[in-house]
Amino acid sequence: MIIVTRPNVTTAELDHIRERIEVLGMRTHVSRGELRTIIGCIGDEALLQEAALVSLPGVESVTPVMKPYKLASREFAAEPTIVRAGDGAGAAVGGRRLAVIAGPCSVEGRDMLRATARAVKAAGAGMLRGGAFKPRTSPYAFQGLGEAGLRMLAEVRAETGLPIVTEVMDTRQVETVAEHADVLQVGARNMQNFALLSELGRVQRPVLLKRGLSATVKELLMAAEYVMAQGNRDVILCERGIRTFETSTRNTLDVAAIPVLKAETHLPVMVDPSHAGGRADLVAPLAFAAIAAGADGLIVEVHPDPQQALSDGDQSLTFHAFEALMRAMQPFAAAAGRELPLPVHLDLREAA
Amino acid sequence: MIIVTRPNVTTAELDHIRERIEVLGMRTHVSRGELRTIIGCIGDEALLQEAALVSLPGVESVTPVMKPYKLASREFAAEPTIVRAGDGAGAAVGGRRLAVIAGPCSVEGRDMLRATARAVKAAGAGMLRGGAFKPRTSPYAFQGLGEAGLRMLAEVRAETGLPIVTEVMDTRQVETVAEHADVLQVGARNMQNFALLSELGRVQRPVLLKRGLSATVKELLMAAEYVMAQGNRDVILCERGIRTFETSTRNTLDVAAIPVLKAETHLPVMVDPSHAGGRADLVAPLAFAAIAAGADGLIVEVHPDPQQALSDGDQSLTFHAFEALMRAMQPFAAAAGRELPLPVHLDLREAA
Amino acid sequence: MIIVTRPNVTTAELDHIRERIEVLGMRTHVSRGELRTIIGCIGDEALLQEAALVSLPGVESVTPVMKPYKLASREFAAEPTIVRAGDGAGAAVGGRRLAVIAGPCSVEGRDMLRATARAVKAAGAGMLRGGAFKPRTSPYAFQGLGEAGLRMLAEVRAETGLPIVTEVMDTRQVETVAEHADVLQVGARNMQNFALLSELGRVQRPVLLKRGLSATVKELLMAAEYVMAQGNRDVILCERGIRTFETSTRNTLDVAAIPVLKAETHLPVMVDPSHAGGRADLVAPLAFAAIAAGADGLIVEVHPDPQQALSDGDQSLTFHAFEALMRAMQPFAAAAGRELPLPVHLDLREAA
Amino acid sequence: MIIVTRPNVTTAELDHIRERIEVLGMRTHVSRGELRTIIGCIGDEALLQEAALVSLPGVESVTPVMKPYKLASREFAAEPTIVRAGDGAGAAVGGRRLAVIAGPCSVEGRDMLRATARAVKAAGAGMLRGGAFKPRTSPYAFQGLGEAGLRMLAEVRAETGLPIVTEVMDTRQVETVAEHADVLQVGARNMQNFALLSELGRVQRPVLLKRGLSATVKELLMAAEYVMAQGNRDVILCERGIRTFETSTRNTLDVAAIPVLKAETHLPVMVDPSHAGGRADLVAPLAFAAIAAGADGLIVEVHPDPQQALSDGDQSLTFHAFEALMRAMQPFAAAAGRELPLPVHLDLREAA
Repeated sequence: MIIVTRPNVTTAELDHIRERIEVLGMRTHVSRGELRTIIGCIGDEALLQEAALVSLPGVESVTPVMKPYKLASREFAAEPTIVRAGDGAGAAVGGRRLAVIAGPCSVEGRDMLRATARAVKAAGAGMLRGGAFKPRTSPYAFQGLGEAGLRMLAEVRAETGLPIVTEVMDTRQVETVAEHADVLQVGARNMQNFALLSELGRVQRPVLLKRGLSATVKELLMAAEYVMAQGNRDVILCERGIRTFETSTRNTLDVAAIPVLKAETHLPVMVDPSHAGGRADLVAPLAFAAIAAGADGLIVEVHPDPQQALSDGDQSLTFHAFEALMRAMQPFAAAAGRELPLPVHLDLREAA
Repeated sequence: MIIVTRPNVTTAELDHIRERIEVLGMRTHVSRGELRTIIGCIGDEALLQEAALVSLPGVESVTPVMKPYKLASREFAAEPTIVRAGDGAGAAVGGRRLAVIAGPCSVEGRDMLRATARAVKAAGAGMLRGGAFKPRTSPYAFQGLGEAGLRMLAEVRAETGLPIVTEVMDTRQVETVAEHADVLQVGARNMQNFALLSELGRVQRPVLLKRGLSATVKELLMAAEYVMAQGNRDVILCERGIRTFETSTRNTLDVAAIPVLKAETHLPVMVDPSHAGGRADLVAPLAFAAIAAGADGLIVEVHPDPQQALSDGDQSLTFHAFEALMRAMQPFAAAAGRELPLPVHLDLREAA
Repeated sequence: MIIVTRPNVTTAELDHIRERIEVLGMRTHVSRGELRTIIGCIGDEALLQEAALVSLPGVESVTPVMKPYKLASREFAAEPTIVRAGDGAGAAVGGRRLAVIAGPCSVEGRDMLRATARAVKAAGAGMLRGGAFKPRTSPYAFQGLGEAGLRMLAEVRAETGLPIVTEVMDTRQVETVAEHADVLQVGARNMQNFALLSELGRVQRPVLLKRGLSATVKELLMAAEYVMAQGNRDVILCERGIRTFETSTRNTLDVAAIPVLKAETHLPVMVDPSHAGGRADLVAPLAFAAIAAGADGLIVEVHPDPQQALSDGDQSLTFHAFEALMRAMQPFAAAAGRELPLPVHLDLREAA
Repeated sequence: MIIVTRPNVTTAELDHIRERIEVLGMRTHVSRGELRTIIGCIGDEALLQEAALVSLPGVESVTPVMKPYKLASREFAAEPTIVRAGDGAGAAVGGRRLAVIAGPCSVEGRDMLRATARAVKAAGAGMLRGGAFKPRTSPYAFQGLGEAGLRMLAEVRAETGLPIVTEVMDTRQVETVAEHADVLQVGARNMQNFALLSELGRVQRPVLLKRGLSATVKELLMAAEYVMAQGNRDVILCERGIRTFETSTRNTLDVAAIPVLKAETHLPVMVDPSHAGGRADLVAPLAFAAIAAGADGLIVEVHPDPQQALSDGDQSLTFHAFEALMRAMQPFAAAAGRELPLPVHLDLREAA
């Protein structure tokens, strides 16, 4: 913690400031300048209250020196963390192979889910996404199938072997969702739902944590720290676009957050190009950009018939478009030194 | 819903678009322009999926005509809603008298709470705020006293008669908090915690709903609609600053949201000048501005010794500063045609 | 300047950093912490390149201690600056009397300008605004009458005695505009047109400097410093709303910028409620809020027939609405301890 | 233009609205709904004033149907525009070959410029950038060498054959800069300096137009339209990061703007990864992302000794780092179907 004093600080004020710090067992270093004096505080910064210090008489500013996250910090782990949602190669996030999670925004029924699962698996996806509990801006919009949706996801996992990624919105649902799903997703609007984060820290399931619409990179890492502080170290971070003044896209993909996060944390970083752009025609260029910038994987919305989707239809890809995306990503994955499985030849009419 | 087509729309595409709308029992009006054709949809707009329409071949844009909120809409209620948190004149929000809620950020103990309650009551506040469950960005920061804090709040209400306003963060806490508190507060980071909003719609307690850091006015009204759709019509909206690029204040108080909200909804609108500015020296000017712009009340952080506060110390007022604020607000309240009780003469040493 | 080192800084790196600073004649104070070392630099901070320091091996962060503006800083002047655009009481900005500048967005013709000038003068305005050169987003929109507009403004000043405030957009126009106008306005989009700012620093006319759409308070003060550094000390700052994600208003009025600026600078601060909200119905509440927060004056768009205005019609007030605004502002001005002249009884039909 | 009426619109109001439109020679189509009536306006939308219409009694909203830019619109040109700054293959922007502009932020002297030009040419850059007139936030910062800098740029062009890209900040400089430079750059802070844009429309030199810090994609296209409307069709657009709440990077690279622009306009789109991230370590990942998203080229800051740079040192690359970047971009260029010349073997000590 570094304290800068006001120009007219008195000796009594300086003494009082130092006393407040030293009483906590910390040491101080005082540098007197022409106009201002600078006090460095040496010791366990967690003991100091930034707010309390800044309101002391004579203090102009207080700057913390330590990062506020520890477990999520790059310095905490020697190697990048690989989060595993199952046994298969496609279920690992953070390794050389790019993770691809695909599926519908909402689970709308068993048949559409099964068809989508088969199609995305054939195209190379390693995990299946699908919302059973849906956060919707309007209380009158489709809210998801709930537990029935969870059961469909589990059934389709049994059939296809694809691990399941689904959102949890309520602390009361955590146990149930954790029973059925392989990865528990926290939506952007819940990124600072601290009760939910803490609860997720107590389950033995990886957490896919989406960045909030107006959350800084630092706040995203603090949210991960909430989960990790309770014991669950398997957190996957997900950049999905932030809210800005620009209106031509649903959100603004903060592509720089990928290398910034990779420099700050050992946790894997995925990108959601579907929500970032909000437009099916932007999914491919944003996915390419994400891979090029160093993302560890992608989460993509796919629907058998986007025009009929109950939610997010305008940003969902058809089966064919998703397969084409998987092929088109190959050279970018190779350029980034990553692996990505090739789609198998599939009769999509059969899948549908 | 108004649909604008692409320049090169075909007749077949036009027919397909109309069919999709008319099958839902709506009527269409088609206006052919030189380059684009416009289709007006007449009927119950709630039946249409904006996303599904926009992805139809030939469609360029889709514009909803109806507001997405109903119960919160000004058109729904003939008169402004007055929300009552108790029997006293100070417990009403939305009437001629300005509501003032004051108290510490966190309940830190019985004595500090009692002293603060007496001081803010004497200064003219009508309700007491204080957090028992605290949303903190860091998992290592003070998280509140929990149920012990709730009991202290209830005790102090019994002593002072001040209704209690406190935050609820978790669906599992709603019942317990509702037992002790008079008004349930939803924090900015939970404004789109839809599970929590729905649960609050089922209790018989007023809800103080704070605007999210990056929530639009429309999204705030949709969040209110979530509560109201479950049966609870007593929602107080609260503008507390939004997140922007400006760094000289903690948030940016969107003072225009006050008249915009008053034009859109019958619900009362309060302002939190403490969180908006994040600086004790800005509380007074922001409070004056809020009253001038038409706010129905203020929620202000007050602490016996802000320098020692466990949270938000730099934006909390001392007892004396709060009393001075209440006096200073008088002429602005009068200018706005509102009433505000004068502080009584109080020996603050006794209160402390 | 305070330098924080990386955890693994070497002694050689530390020595190199100190050398780089001391060679400039500054002194250093080194505080060794457990993980990081802090170097305080004492002397003339202007000699140091923040960018150069931060890229030295071993450096983690560099924090300037001094403010980057000097002439605009509150510490530079003992008293608040009063800028005078003429001899009359209404031509001063920054004193006890609130300054009111009113008039059309664009000068559209001699008759409309004369009528507006008479109406706003009768209603109590002290200065007349009107654009001769108009910055328009589209090259196909009305660009203003140019020099003919300037001559009309000068004529109407001769008739009414109202000082003239008009925008200058081009360094080549500065001389001409300065010949005709009393106050030279810099529009939001030109706030960081440094060539223009420097040129305005060399004329003997007050400058009304509007805050840029995404300019911080600090950048606004730096822009003022550009003008002042060339010798012109008569700068009036103007908050006119910033760009955020909110779409229900044209811009977001940053009402907190008023007290923040008043604490940082001796320069007067005006507010433009017309551009901030972009809606005629928001002009009054935003004007009240601005006065309450401590603004030194207002600049308001008034038009004889807003529906026919060539620009900004939706945010312009009619003569009657402006007169009503001037009356309605009286109690807020009084509450803020400011003076505001009462409208005289005027037959507005005659004015029109 | 589509007009939606208020719920309680009267027949007289409807007639008045239609009259206002039809008097301009346009036709109207009226669709009466249950609550609102919709009026479609057919004809030349440029004749209508959105602002004037929205303030008519009975009108709730007005939505333009046509795009406000014409010459810049994709519909205006059958093929993507290739802008040529000289005869060489490296001087074309918009073709299959990626354009690379590199050089120092500021021209600091003849030797450093010559060395940089040789190094970036050897590494594969096709054009040389360097600021002679520098827009600096502080009036006390280095403002560039002015005309002396322009002459150095021209000399180095003569020696190396690299076309010169340099910024112009003032309408009075346009002629002089156009004499020396091959491409005239408009900085982000001048993107809506309409006087400058118009002046640049009258010269026979390509314009590199950087997106403003808070400019939408649409506003960037409108700024290009300003230049084009005066006759100069050679405009290169440049995404360089927008201003958001995020503070871990200097700006937020809006990578989605690349495909959005490519869909809207025939003009080429470059990206400036140096300013976007503001950190040398982010230049490579952002450059890769830009290529992957479809950018037509990159503009990169390179300096012989970034630690000693007079401006932007923390985001400038060394010669070696730039050469490494050019090599590292090869696979991404190939993945995107673009060409990029390989660096030649160069003894950089000689270049320096």
